[in-house]
Formats: sequence, C-alpha cells, structure tokens
Amino acid sequence: MFHNFLPKEYSFFDLFDKQAACAVEAAAYFKDLVQRANIDEAAYEKMHDIEHKGDDVAHDIIDKLDKSFITPFDREDIHALVKELDDVTDMINTIVSRMKVYKIKGVDKNLVKFADVIEESVRSVSIVVKGMRNKKNAKVVFDSCIEINRLENVGDSLRDDVLAELFENEKDPITVIKLKEIYQDAETVLDICEDLAHVVKSVLLKQA
Amino acid sequence: MFHNFLPKEYSFFDLFDKQAACAVEAAAYFKDLVQRANIDEAAYEKMHDIEHKGDDVAHDIIDKLDKSFITPFDREDIHALVKELDDVTDMINTIVSRMKVYKIKGVDKNLVKFADVIEESVRSVSIVVKGMRNKKNAKVVFDSCIEINRLENVGDSLRDDVLAELFENEKDPITVIKLKEIYQDAETVLDICEDLAHVVKSVLLKQA
Amino acid sequence: MFHNFLPKEYSFFDLFDKQAACAVEAAAYFKDLVQRANIDEAAYEKMHDIEHKGDDVAHDIIDKLDKSFITPFDREDIHALVKELDDVTDMINTIVSRMKVYKIKGVDKNLVKFADVIEESVRSVSIVVKGMRNKKNAKVVFDSCIEINRLENVGDSLRDDVLAELFENEKDPITVIKLKEIYQDAETVLDICEDLAHVVKSVLLKQA
Repeated sequence: MFHNFLPKEYSFFDLFDKQAACAVEAAAYFKDLVQRANIDEAAYEKMHDIEHKGDDVAHDIIDKLDKSFITPFDREDIHALVKELDDVTDMINTIVSRMKVYKIKGVDKNLVKFADVIEESVRSVSIVVKGMRNKKNAKVVFDSCIEINRLENVGDSLRDDVLAELFENEKDPITVIKLKEIYQDAETVLDICEDLAHVVKSVLLKQA
Repeated sequence: MFHNFLPKEYSFFDLFDKQAACAVEAAAYFKDLVQRANIDEAAYEKMHDIEHKGDDVAHDIIDKLDKSFITPFDREDIHALVKELDDVTDMINTIVSRMKVYKIKGVDKNLVKFADVIEESVRSVSIVVKGMRNKKNAKVVFDSCIEINRLENVGDSLRDDVLAELFENEKDPITVIKLKEIYQDAETVLDICEDLAHVVKSVLLKQA
Repeated sequence: MFHNFLPKEYSFFDLFDKQAACAVEAAAYFKDLVQRANIDEAAYEKMHDIEHKGDDVAHDIIDKLDKSFITPFDREDIHALVKELDDVTDMINTIVSRMKVYKIKGVDKNLVKFADVIEESVRSVSIVVKGMRNKKNAKVVFDSCIEINRLENVGDSLRDDVLAELFENEKDPITVIKLKEIYQDAETVLDICEDLAHVVKSVLLKQA
C-alpha cells in the first residue's frame, strides 16, 4: 500500500520530488550549456551547485530513512531510488567537468543531440517519481517508464552512431580520447534513468 | 532448504536456466564471431536478438518475484543472480557492438583466446545455476564455482599480457584505444561470472 | 545496539579490522612504490600478495556471515562494508598492475600526490572501521567520515588538475591513454572510501 493515510510519510515523496527536480535542473542546464560555444568557470560552478544541492537532498532522505520506523516502501528500494537519482545528477555534472578539463570548445552537434534525449528522459524520471505517491497514477508511471526505456534505446543507437563517426573522421587521437569518454558518459545518464525506472516499476508491482 | 516439495517454485529455477542458456548462447556465438574475419550487420543483429531474449527472461523473473510470496531463496539473492546473468549477456553484446562500431577487421588472436575462456566460464555458470535446484548437487556447484574463479584469474593474466603486447607493439593510438576497451570489456565478462559464483555460493551456504 | 554483551560477535569486528589493515598496507605500499623510479616484478608480486590476503579475509567474513544467526549489524550492511573494503585494496592493486603493464618508468609527481591522499583516506577508513565496535566512539567515527569526504573532494580537484595538465602538455597520445586511466583509477580509490564512510554512517544512525 502507499499508506495514503499517513501524512507524515508524504515528506519522503516531497524529498524524492526535490531530488528529482535537481536532476531535471541539471539536465536542462546541460542542454543549455552544450548549445553554447564554451564552458566558462561560472557555468561550471553553477552545474556544481546543482549537483551539490541534489547531494544534500539525498543525505536528508538517507538520514530520515535511518531514523524512521515506517517508510512508504521497502528501505532497500528507497536506498536504490535515492542512489539512482543521485547518479543522474552526478553523471551530468561529471560530463560538464570533463568538458571543462578537456577544454572542449565550440558546439558539438552530437552532444546537443544527447542533451535533448537526456532532458526528455530526466523529465520522464521526474514524472515517474512524482507519480509514485498514489496508485491512481499507475498508468502515467508505467507509460513514463516505457518512454524512459525507449529513450535508452535511442541513446544506445546515438552513441554507436557518433562513435562510428568519430573513429571514422577524427584523425587526432587526443580528440578521440576526449569525445569518446564524453559520449559514453552521456549514454550512461540514460542507462541510469532506465535503472531508476526498473526500481520504480518493482516498487509498484510489489504493492499491486 | 531448497523446498524440493514445492513444485510451483521450480519454475523460478526453469527461468534461471533459460536466462543462463541465453548467456551460453551469447558466449558460443561470440566465440564463433571472433573466429571470422568480419562482423556484418546480420551477425550483429543475431547477437542483439540473443541479448534481447535474455532481457525478456530477466524481466519475467523479476515480475514473478514481485508477485510471489514464497521464493526458493532470498529475494535479494534472486535479484542479484538475475542481474549478474543479465550482465554477462549484456557485456558480450556490448563487445560485439563495439567491434562493429570500431570496424574491427580480421581475426584478432587475443580476442579468440578471450572468447575461449569466456565460453568455458559461462558454461560453468550454467552448471552452477542448474545445480542450485537441489542440495545433492552441492559438490558439482562448488567445483564449478572454483573453476569460474580459476578462469577469472586466467582472464586477468591474459588481459595484462595482451595489453602489455598492445602498448609495446601497436603504434597507432586509435587502434590502441579500440582494442584496449575491447580487451578490458572481455575480461569484465569473467569478473561478472565470478561475482555470480559468489552469489550462488552464498545462497548455498545460507541453506547448508 | 552494538551487542557489547555478545563476545562471540567481536570476531566480526576483528575480521573487519584485519581487512581494513590489508587496505592500509596496500595504500602504504602504493605510496612507497610511486616514489621509486620503477615497479619491478617483486614489487608487483608483493602488492598482489597484500590483495590476496585481503581477499581471504573477505571470504572468511562472508562465510562466517552465511553461517551466523546473530550478526552485530544488518547482514546487507556487513556485505556492503566487506565489499567496499575489498574494492579499496583491489583498486590499488589494479593501479599497480596497470603501471607494470604500461611500463610506467620514473617518478610521476602527480601519482605521488594521489598516493598521499589515498593513504590518508585509507587510514581514516581503518579508524572508522575500528570505531564501529562501540557507540562511545561515535564522535571519532563521524569525524573520520567527514575527513574521508574532504579527501574525496581533494581527490576530485587533483584529478581535474592533473588531467587538464596531461591534455595540455603531453603530446604522445599513448602516454595520455595510460596516465589518464591511472589517474582516474587513483581517484576511484577515494570514491570507494567515501562510499564506505556512507555505509558506516548509515549503520551508526540506525543504531542511534
């Protein structure tokens, strides 16, 4: 059951939403960043702040969990959900950090494509997380999970295509090293969203 | 206990066998592929189909698990077993996908060596999984676990040897980037088999 | 509760200490190694022996766990603690193995910096693990966890700095490939220490 009658537990869901909102903010800002020609120190700091805010919410949830007797669903599933949400924001932050360290200049059209798919997927993640509060949202949640899976497949194909293109056309090995890592990390964000969708589906099925 | 008296639960073991069979099929097909000069679209599609079939079985098991009150062993161990089996097939599929994307042509003798060790290890994995049904198979299961550990060590040495050779002899950095990733991923398949053996040993010891 | 009255369980903590001591030995030896000009076969073998000793302790703990009815804290947390401790030593061993395979000659000042931070962090890990036995150590444990988090941030900045320097100054792509992997693995040791600190804090909070 979702213990709809236990208002105290609603705060867990509020915290999940807050953590998901950080992931959405990170994805939206990432999309914004890759459309610019350059990542400066201020842009990097802003992304880092978003990641830090997400981290704080994750710690709040785990502290709350360790002190709570009653939880809206299994502890291990809450741990898994918090970890996946944290990993989404972390991985986006890692990509931006690498772009800065590797001094990636100019707009990379492939990274723009990845940023679009990532933003779509993370927005579906936030719908899924918000929907968990109440069984009546089951259809919306399952549909969004299907969408997250679809976007992971889109990301897989995109990564294969851009890597093939990179190894075909780029003659500078140092550039290959840099972009290969960034493209693979970008696809990993979509893998994490898919793992999160599995966690949520499993929670819903147990309570069905 | 293995609940030998509860025939309903046998279907979990049947599903584990089915999932392990997909891993064996992937390993055997991988061995076949690396002995050819080229991976074409059809070969790649076939590997992808095997991976997809394994995925479907994994989802079946998790759905069944979420709906079952009684399970043949701890839920978290079932989750871990399904995940490791899924990871084996996934990683083999990933390697084939990279070989296609990186346009690896010709037979690489080191990859043939890895494919041999991987197939041996995955066959031991399927013996281990099949043996879990009944305590009377304990010796066979433990012996196969030891074999899987041995093959992981073989894989470690093989990876170190082929990487040393690659960095010593290959002067094209782009080729180094490609083969380094593929060799490391090949060794990862053996790590996953070892993790799976740990899960199974732990299940058996708890029930001893 | 820490079940201070159950002396039999003390042996779990003794084993955790033994496993942590292997991680400290690995970190100290790693620091020693990176200050030398060359890693020879004997040095590599010694590191491998430390890793193997740690592995044996990990297996002892898991065997003991699978056979015990009463454990000093949740089984899943013991599993997590043992895994993180094992991962620390494993990752240090992996770095040394790569340095040998890649024939890294001469002293790399960046690796010396990483080895210092790693040793500090792993020593804090051993304090944390030793402190878990008794609630009266809570302050020492929490302070050491904060120190481990601080060192992880130090490692993050260090990795970004040395990668930026590497991509700026090193013109040989093969050397870039080698050092990039080694620096990233070095930072991963600090990530694992941080994950371990999270596990320990969670155990303490549950028992508060």
